[in-house]
Amino acid sequence: MSGCPFSGSPGHTPDGGAPEPAAAAGPPAAGGSANRGLSRRWLLSLAGAGGAGAVAGLAAGFLGHDAVAAAAPPQAAEDIIAFHGDRQAGIVTPAQDRLHIAAFDVVTEDRAELIRLLKDWTAAAAAMTAGRGTGSSGAVDGPYDAPPEDTGETLDLGAGKLTLTFGFGPGLFEKDGKARFGLDGRRPDALIDLPHFPGDDLQPGRTGGDIVVQACADDPQVAVHAIRNLARIGFGQTRVRWSQLGFGRTSSTSRSQTTPRNLFGFKDGTSNLKAEEAALLDEHVWAGPGTRPGEAWMAGGTYLVARRIRMHIEIWDRTSLREQEGLIGRTKGSGAPLSGGEEFTTPNFDITGSGGEPLIPLDAHVRLAHSSRNDGVKMLRRGYNYTDGSDGLGHLDAGLFFIAFVTDPRTHYVPMQLAMAKEDTLALEYLKHTGSGLFAVPPGTAAGGFIGEGLFT
Amino acid sequence: MSGCPFSGSPGHTPDGGAPEPAAAAGPPAAGGSANRGLSRRWLLSLAGAGGAGAVAGLAAGFLGHDAVAAAAPPQAAEDIIAFHGDRQAGIVTPAQDRLHIAAFDVVTEDRAELIRLLKDWTAAAAAMTAGRGTGSSGAVDGPYDAPPEDTGETLDLGAGKLTLTFGFGPGLFEKDGKARFGLDGRRPDALIDLPHFPGDDLQPGRTGGDIVVQACADDPQVAVHAIRNLARIGFGQTRVRWSQLGFGRTSSTSRSQTTPRNLFGFKDGTSNLKAEEAALLDEHVWAGPGTRPGEAWMAGGTYLVARRIRMHIEIWDRTSLREQEGLIGRTKGSGAPLSGGEEFTTPNFDITGSGGEPLIPLDAHVRLAHSSRNDGVKMLRRGYNYTDGSDGLGHLDAGLFFIAFVTDPRTHYVPMQLAMAKEDTLALEYLKHTGSGLFAVPPGTAAGGFIGEGLFT
Repeated sequence: MSGCPFSGSPGHTPDGGAPEPAAAAGPPAAGGSANRGLSRRWLLSLAGAGGAGAVAGLAAGFLGHDAVAAAAPPQAAEDIIAFHGDRQAGIVTPAQDRLHIAAFDVVTEDRAELIRLLKDWTAAAAAMTAGRGTGSSGAVDGPYDAPPEDTGETLDLGAGKLTLTFGFGPGLFEKDGKARFGLDGRRPDALIDLPHFPGDDLQPGRTGGDIVVQACADDPQVAVHAIRNLARIGFGQTRVRWSQLGFGRTSSTSRSQTTPRNLFGFKDGTSNLKAEEAALLDEHVWAGPGTRPGEAWMAGGTYLVARRIRMHIEIWDRTSLREQEGLIGRTKGSGAPLSGGEEFTTPNFDITGSGGEPLIPLDAHVRLAHSSRNDGVKMLRRGYNYTDGSDGLGHLDAGLFFIAFVTDPRTHYVPMQLAMAKEDTLALEYLKHTGSGLFAVPPGTAAGGFIGEGLFT
Repeated sequence: MSGCPFSGSPGHTPDGGAPEPAAAAGPPAAGGSANRGLSRRWLLSLAGAGGAGAVAGLAAGFLGHDAVAAAAPPQAAEDIIAFHGDRQAGIVTPAQDRLHIAAFDVVTEDRAELIRLLKDWTAAAAAMTAGRGTGSSGAVDGPYDAPPEDTGETLDLGAGKLTLTFGFGPGLFEKDGKARFGLDGRRPDALIDLPHFPGDDLQPGRTGGDIVVQACADDPQVAVHAIRNLARIGFGQTRVRWSQLGFGRTSSTSRSQTTPRNLFGFKDGTSNLKAEEAALLDEHVWAGPGTRPGEAWMAGGTYLVARRIRMHIEIWDRTSLREQEGLIGRTKGSGAPLSGGEEFTTPNFDITGSGGEPLIPLDAHVRLAHSSRNDGVKMLRRGYNYTDGSDGLGHLDAGLFFIAFVTDPRTHYVPMQLAMAKEDTLALEYLKHTGSGLFAVPPGTAAGGFIGEGLFT
């Protein structure tokens, strides 16, 4: 045996035999890669080879959950977003750079299994958002003859500001007109079946779902790892209905952030609600207890609207700057409204140019989407740019994965989207909605609780 | 008009009329957002309103290419990878974090149009890798009644270590058995049609292509922007055949980098060739002049092998750690070979355990892929993890987008892949190749030259 078992990874022996500890003297160096390479299996095999006493001491000091945490890469506090709280994280959290969102179909009909799943997901989410794995990765400890309890691809990565935000779709409450999981009367009235909007071209494989999980992180591998491990944990109870990566945020949700650009090249979400606007969030984002006792569990939650919006970028890219700015109603450079000022200047829809035409055209997106034209409603947008290969017709399949959080989609999404789908030239000529979902996002989880537990009490 | 035209963005007037300069006195503040908002259109409209003299001075000071460069976000030198050189960048360049690779079909049959395209792409690539746009974005200058010359979504971003690496597929040289573009005899002998490998499940829409462009950057929006603008520039001459995003690198190409993990959770590419190994790169990566004068243009180039490899992660995740490590031949934690040592210890394939079985199983991937088992050949791998939504069967469509650069695929890829496809249990049970491409990557481009010009002389 050429490798010193204390100088790095000792090498598991596939046949179960113990490698010869060529120079097995002294404890491993504290911290760093030496600890990473230690394994219970190796220690057990070393014990079998006669080093039981030493091993016991090592095991007490280096193994178990504390040891895993100690062996994990040091987590910078600013890279960790707290999982527990009155509200779920990932809503007003300053929007992270990358997204992996997935909707799951629940295939079990057993209420206890569903609750078990939600508890397991809660534990996994709390661990992953803290930068830990979902259990033994097999790389540090854990049984050698069982599948690892974490898939391992983030072993060397930090927490990456990961947030995991869970929501329940209509299909969790009923299927084929029958209540599921004993949830009769618990579906919130606001969790409607979204109507068909003019121009919708929804694909079933990108639409709906019983449970949605939005994973946001600054490192995409962290977000992908999180969804993948929830899918792994849910095996047998859930199936991945759809999944979407977003490579660049298109919204700011905090005044601390600059406004990003969408794939039209324009700043997006300038007038988005921000984490600092508590009163507006209470009015437009957070849900109340509803009108029936059965839906009171949603108090402090919100509703997540997901829309996969394909952009016809190849047509847009051949549109003149004049038309682009007129369709948006803002300048491409600074994002200022065409009525003047700078990015955050309130648009003035009444100002006309020398020809008598309004500086912000009548069909400009900023005019049609403005809260002043939509009964004062605002939303918290949290979308991402996506690109999913070729469309098979010679173009990139690219666009915006739209996510918004609203207090009630009946007042805060449907009317505006109906108006947009009918009047907005941008929507009519350059956008196509190919996926959709609406989910009731329960309030946050206290330590010791589980996601959505209010629904089951 | 409420907005002062010098206090930010002046607002273009959609009807072509000039906004009234309410307080048009004094030059804009130097630098920053004030400059960003200035537009030639606005200045021209101001000129029309009587301020021609002042405008001329402003234009000289703030517009034109220098002004665009000055207005762009400051580019940190370490974020820029030089485009020009004897070799193309993006090969031995330390592997960036994110990938967008696309293959284009060339739809014109006109040689002059193809050369024009390559020249336009060269100029665009040189600009984008330096952190500039591909021309006027319309946000700073440029004609108002024409499409912007850059799509704009990276206006506020840095160069992001962008590299763009171009390669030519067999289809550029001939179609339906007939030479294209007067390139008779110019197809390198090494640019073979890859054979069918056992287990291949190639999708036509993910396979082949006349020209490949590999965009790598640390910011995915930068990589997506680059491919999107090349597609835009190529409109009419090219179509996007396939396109793939990779969210996390699975290779190191420099000793300065740590080894990343693939979606099996294992460190990948430990024994990869590195930029510092010049002699090995000459032997295994860089192409020579070939044996015919017609292929001498490839001297200093290389061959890019692309394989989209779906991983059956949901099966893998239910495989015991013992089996996972045996299939790979390395430990999951440190990546050490099962024969002992640490990550970079040379595997010892002869060591046996107490049961007489080799510590590195006979069908372990590290054994089968090792250069000692493959006529000493090595390759420069540069792959990325990918996740592309759901597979429609309840699982994530996830895997490895394999990219390798080799001196000759006939010696350096085909034999190894044939062996893998027949003997490697990992490949047989956990992998499926769903896309493929082979491309001749010409040498680098000198300033004033264009990509692949040696092919046309």
